[in-house]
Amino acid sequence: MTKLELNNELLTGLLTGFIRNETKRIGLSKAVIGLSGGIDSAVVAYLAAKALGNRNVMCLIMPYKTSSPDSIDDAMKVVDSLKVPFRKADITEAVDAVFALGEGEEDSKVRMGNVMARIRMILLYDESAGCNGLVIGTGNKTEILLGYSTIFGDAACAINPVGDLYKTQLRSLARHLGVPESIIDKKPSADLWKGQTDEGELGFTYEEVDRYLYQKVDMRRSREALRKSGFKDEFMNKVDRMIERNQFKRLPPLIAKVGKRTVNVDFRYNRDWKT
Amino acid sequence: MTKLELNNELLTGLLTGFIRNETKRIGLSKAVIGLSGGIDSAVVAYLAAKALGNRNVMCLIMPYKTSSPDSIDDAMKVVDSLKVPFRKADITEAVDAVFALGEGEEDSKVRMGNVMARIRMILLYDESAGCNGLVIGTGNKTEILLGYSTIFGDAACAINPVGDLYKTQLRSLARHLGVPESIIDKKPSADLWKGQTDEGELGFTYEEVDRYLYQKVDMRRSREALRKSGFKDEFMNKVDRMIERNQFKRLPPLIAKVGKRTVNVDFRYNRDWKT
Repeated sequence: MTKLELNNELLTGLLTGFIRNETKRIGLSKAVIGLSGGIDSAVVAYLAAKALGNRNVMCLIMPYKTSSPDSIDDAMKVVDSLKVPFRKADITEAVDAVFALGEGEEDSKVRMGNVMARIRMILLYDESAGCNGLVIGTGNKTEILLGYSTIFGDAACAINPVGDLYKTQLRSLARHLGVPESIIDKKPSADLWKGQTDEGELGFTYEEVDRYLYQKVDMRRSREALRKSGFKDEFMNKVDRMIERNQFKRLPPLIAKVGKRTVNVDFRYNRDWKT
Repeated sequence: MTKLELNNELLTGLLTGFIRNETKRIGLSKAVIGLSGGIDSAVVAYLAAKALGNRNVMCLIMPYKTSSPDSIDDAMKVVDSLKVPFRKADITEAVDAVFALGEGEEDSKVRMGNVMARIRMILLYDESAGCNGLVIGTGNKTEILLGYSTIFGDAACAINPVGDLYKTQLRSLARHLGVPESIIDKKPSADLWKGQTDEGELGFTYEEVDRYLYQKVDMRRSREALRKSGFKDEFMNKVDRMIERNQFKRLPPLIAKVGKRTVNVDFRYNRDWKT
């Protein structure tokens, strides 16, 4: 019924080619990936190992004191099966030092999550500077469209091979690549607190929202047609508001134009621009 | 000879209007600004205070243990003259906690600078979440074009009122706005170590590179014409390489296109898109 199914063989070739080309093009041969223990970063590690060779994929496992031991175990399963170099870095002290500097008038889970995501970004970029590797992003299309990520945190990367794959498509690709079953089968979670799940927080399942997003974004179907397919207005309004409200996370900062040519307004060269 | 001069009266109206409109448009009334003690952040604070009222401009002063006391004094001059709310947050502990997690095989000034810029970004965004304010960027056009900034660090912001102003244009605007003379007159510096200056690191002056960038980027003059204006090939090659090599800092992450509509490829709505 939906057209979310992809040819995983073809897809694997395309995405490993993307990683290889974009890395070599700027003269690098290594990748740096943050492994959360979840499916997205696992898939990216598998793709990068195929693309660049496992010894060229540096993986960072960056638990906070509240991170589930299962997450670390699952991240280690990826490391062990791919035989990639890795480093564990406990971010507790750094995160707590930053949070102590904030006003902290309330124990906000969202703010804690943002600080953790951004500290991890700092470590990935520091690693990338140290080993001359490219930070490979792991955000999927569902999360990018919904804005279910931290800007300048987990959304920060040089290239992202899975940013055009819906979560459900990623699951299918993960099976094809041989990602450990325990990682594919567990409920997606940002692992900020015990029992947290993405779907619990979002209030809908990935299956449901992916079917909707595919039809709305990719197929550009009208509200009327979507209604006929069985989507409820309340659900559609909620999702549409998320897409709209989080546009800023997908765009570079807005610069006030005052000159003749302005960065990201009319000075917008392709990546391949040569002077 | 150059056309770098702007009408500062007009410019002030335009930029305060930009800050006001972009802030109100998303239902906010406050701004969050990191004050370094330098001219760029001072100008932005002056503009924001004019645009939103001084009480709505939250300023953060975020020294590291090696920061010059003069920088803090100059940041305080801005706070005192504008009577804006402010907070001092010493980032030493947080930065050192992060740097201790890195491989740190060498004492790299560049890596230290990047970690500091990114820790400051985290604090600004945490503050913005706490007070419901917009993080206003302070990067100027010279530094954005040269890539003389830290991606996901000082380059991170929601809106940037001065990103289309060359450094020399910013100096002229600073005088018009009444920014304290000591801030305008001192040598620009990232203040990472004693005696560091931008111009010393870059190997040319802002006057010189601004004249070149304006003619090359804004006026699109040819290499031949620029040569006739007296610019040396060696200088032009160096600057062109910086522009080119740092394009990634001006762009959102590159996503591998596999679907029908891909974020930042063919799903690229205006900021004002309504569902």
